[in-house]
Amino acid sequence: MPTQYYTACSLDGFIATEDDSLEWLFQLGDPSETSYGEFIRNVGALAMGSTTYEWLLRHAIKPGDPAGEPWPYSQPTWIFTTRQLPVIPGADIRFVSGDVRPIHEQMTAAAGGKNLWIVGGGELVGQFYDAGLLDELILQIGAVTLVTGKPLLPRRIITPPLKLLSVEQINNGLAELRYAVPRPA
Amino acid sequence: MPTQYYTACSLDGFIATEDDSLEWLFQLGDPSETSYGEFIRNVGALAMGSTTYEWLLRHAIKPGDPAGEPWPYSQPTWIFTTRQLPVIPGADIRFVSGDVRPIHEQMTAAAGGKNLWIVGGGELVGQFYDAGLLDELILQIGAVTLVTGKPLLPRRIITPPLKLLSVEQINNGLAELRYAVPRPA
Repeated sequence: MPTQYYTACSLDGFIATEDDSLEWLFQLGDPSETSYGEFIRNVGALAMGSTTYEWLLRHAIKPGDPAGEPWPYSQPTWIFTTRQLPVIPGADIRFVSGDVRPIHEQMTAAAGGKNLWIVGGGELVGQFYDAGLLDELILQIGAVTLVTGKPLLPRRIITPPLKLLSVEQINNGLAELRYAVPRPA
Repeated sequence: MPTQYYTACSLDGFIATEDDSLEWLFQLGDPSETSYGEFIRNVGALAMGSTTYEWLLRHAIKPGDPAGEPWPYSQPTWIFTTRQLPVIPGADIRFVSGDVRPIHEQMTAAAGGKNLWIVGGGELVGQFYDAGLLDELILQIGAVTLVTGKPLLPRRIITPPLKLLSVEQINNGLAELRYAVPRPA
């Protein structure tokens, strides 16, 4: 039932470089070592921004390329975009824009009691936070510093602070930290 | 013997706000709950930048103010500055500027086999990193996002990455992560 932001980020809080590279992340470990398998089994609906969707298209799906992979999610997925984007045949996706609140209602209805995953990027997650709809952060903190890049969550959350729920070392490149997110003041 | 950067930072990698406030940090726990007591006992020499020194002057020492505190370190301390700064009577401090390498030699000689602590800020720590003289990061990651502020370490360290040595939950506001630092490429 919680709405979760599950993502990897650098030690200094970037989810990607300025040019959306994740090369720094792939050297740090195999997703099978992480909590991802258990996490995704409990997800009933996803939302992501257009940059995240286009990253998946370019780096994983590769439409028309025999080396492309299938759409990775069986759950219904909402893509926030104001542009016309390529459709992936067979993928349960819908393109939306604007206020996140009615979309959160649709996601909740579709999720069948399971969790909602806001995949990213940070600005979309920030909009769910602004609306009081973000419950948890689950972060794999990678052992790199990027200095510049796409921010984890471009919202100042100080008072009240986040609440650290757990910490775990995955390997020598990744730590997983879980936080409960307060409602915005 | 290692040269360590021991500091608190926000979840998104800032050690202070743009105006050098640490108010976000003080709400998150008592230093006595952390590893600080054990850490400082093993420190033989310190170095810090002028902004850090001036922060201590303004917020703790308060020269001339009956509410001021004594200089907190018994170990010899090097202050990197290009400006004339107030001296604290009785404090074992020396003002220096320029190349960190000869200062690191002086610190090592003075430390009697104990560890060297680069207190901050991030740019000074970066200069020790550039010179191949930084061995460990010990970070208390606070459960807040600042979005902007003074960066933890303004150096891109990706290949090879840092090496995560340990993770520990201190309380519901602080996680401690320890890293070994690679030599710059």
